[in-house]
Amino acid sequence: MYVVVVYDIGELRVARMLKLCRKYLNWIQNSVFEGEITEVKLKEMLSKAREIMDLDYDSIIIFKSREHKWLDKQIVGVARSQIDNFL
Amino acid sequence: MYVVVVYDIGELRVARMLKLCRKYLNWIQNSVFEGEITEVKLKEMLSKAREIMDLDYDSIIIFKSREHKWLDKQIVGVARSQIDNFL
Repeated sequence: MYVVVVYDIGELRVARMLKLCRKYLNWIQNSVFEGEITEVKLKEMLSKAREIMDLDYDSIIIFKSREHKWLDKQIVGVARSQIDNFL
Repeated sequence: MYVVVVYDIGELRVARMLKLCRKYLNWIQNSVFEGEITEVKLKEMLSKAREIMDLDYDSIIIFKSREHKWLDKQIVGVARSQIDNFL
């Protein structure tokens, strides 16, 4: 399945969350990731994410599409994923 | 069509962008919006967004799904849209 993941995480925890998400998905904007992932791997990622998060303050939203082709993407302005390659 | 819109906008411009996007879509997280919108209305919104943005630094990513039902949403942690109702 294809997912888009966006998080809103307190500053103290955001570096760990970024590192975690980049292990599973492609970083495309400040707090946005996308990629092909299995249900099992997504559960694994979210389980680890819960350990990092303060569940009273932080949030992650996951949009799931069974097929990548059902989701079109349009970018206006800077495409951050180009920057990501240099990090 | 159903869209998810995420932006990464410089601090000086972010309040105007938030106001713009909330006219067209539902605010669900810090810089994330979703909702049913026509192609024409989306173009109108993006045209206004470009006037606000610094296209060398800012970015908006739009994920489009022809049918809302093709896109599942899962939230972990705080659901910001609940907060939105009180603003």
